[in-house]
Amino acid sequence: MSSSGTAPAYRRLSVDERRSQLLRHALDLFAHRPPEDVSLDDVAVAAGVSRPLVYRYFPGGKQQLYEAALRSAADRLEQCFAEPHSGPLTVRLARALDRYLAFVDEYDAGFMALLQGGSVVETSRTSAIVDEVRRDAAAQILTHLGAEEGKESARLRMTVRTWIAAVEAASLIWLDEDKQPPLSQLRDGLVDHFVALLTATAATDPATATVTRRALAMEEPDGPVAQLVRRILPVVADAGHLW
Amino acid sequence: MSSSGTAPAYRRLSVDERRSQLLRHALDLFAHRPPEDVSLDDVAVAAGVSRPLVYRYFPGGKQQLYEAALRSAADRLEQCFAEPHSGPLTVRLARALDRYLAFVDEYDAGFMALLQGGSVVETSRTSAIVDEVRRDAAAQILTHLGAEEGKESARLRMTVRTWIAAVEAASLIWLDEDKQPPLSQLRDGLVDHFVALLTATAATDPATATVTRRALAMEEPDGPVAQLVRRILPVVADAGHLW
Repeated sequence: MSSSGTAPAYRRLSVDERRSQLLRHALDLFAHRPPEDVSLDDVAVAAGVSRPLVYRYFPGGKQQLYEAALRSAADRLEQCFAEPHSGPLTVRLARALDRYLAFVDEYDAGFMALLQGGSVVETSRTSAIVDEVRRDAAAQILTHLGAEEGKESARLRMTVRTWIAAVEAASLIWLDEDKQPPLSQLRDGLVDHFVALLTATAATDPATATVTRRALAMEEPDGPVAQLVRRILPVVADAGHLW
Repeated sequence: MSSSGTAPAYRRLSVDERRSQLLRHALDLFAHRPPEDVSLDDVAVAAGVSRPLVYRYFPGGKQQLYEAALRSAADRLEQCFAEPHSGPLTVRLARALDRYLAFVDEYDAGFMALLQGGSVVETSRTSAIVDEVRRDAAAQILTHLGAEEGKESARLRMTVRTWIAAVEAASLIWLDEDKQPPLSQLRDGLVDHFVALLTATAATDPATATVTRRALAMEEPDGPVAQLVRRILPVVADAGHLW
């Protein structure tokens, strides 16, 4: 992770830059060790700075450092989801996924630490940070689908939330498999999966059928959905006994 | 969880029964507190037995108790996946899901503890236990799909693994939402999602297309896939500009 490497000695970082740098190093350390085993001293060594400097930024000690690192990563992650409400839904989803996957690529082990922080029971605050990111992602998608908040069907909400879990899993598998396949292929596959899940849920849930019809109407004749359908047809052509 | 309640005083449990009872209580406790905060004394109180008795079963202390509880839950979970290789794939998948979801229903908070154990970084052994369950589930599904081990495509493997992550997420959401919808509806939705993901992946991955064609050929004319297709058609009918 070259971008979080030790800054050249001749350049003074601003307070914000220094803080970000320390949080990035902390997140990397949390990826490989439980939070209670990461000391402020470790962060000082990793960042190539003095110990007093780290203590000045995080007087609350390792718990403050841990929560600040998660908070900072979560904030950056939430920025990935903001997307204008125009154009086909698959194009918006692809753009948000591009930003999200760039974050996964850049933060790498730190991304894993973030997700681990979300399920470690140790403090309700760290769980809340990661749950907030997931909830924010789901809420954004539901808004783009035109589902009114609180009025969308439970099945649509569950479909969106399980797809988000699948995206997280895919990101971890991608990191684990030496970042294969290329990000654009991973992103296209995840968009296809979203369309497939939405349509399958629409089959048995009227509220999801409504938003799916509306979403499909916005898609372009040469867009991702059209290409997906054209490529699915030959696969299912032999199974004529089913329709 | 009445089945793990205090046994009537007049009945002596066998060594195995007693051990299972203690592990169930331990798992319940781990669901609500970090492992390091659950003492053997807590388990004794929860199980309504004497402290020396718990110490006799787990002389290695809380770490031994924690790992044994995860191990025991993981073993039971892996038994859910065993399924004969005959009949339509969706029927096999539905049967395995029925067993898995019955486990989620029965173990409840303990199931959450198990999943948390899988991402807590604290010991590589506990992560390994939960990862083993996930790997086992993925391997079983790939075998049923007729994908040769090690030769299946990376995209097929990733699709199966992300669907498993989605099933885990759906289970946690289901527990969180007071066990709604009914299990049969949740199971049918997850089977539909599997079919949708497999077919969407088949659209752009030849190896997945091969196993999908074979799987579709085994489906019954009135089975889940046929019903799914019949119900999807009216939803997509209006989007004629896409095909």
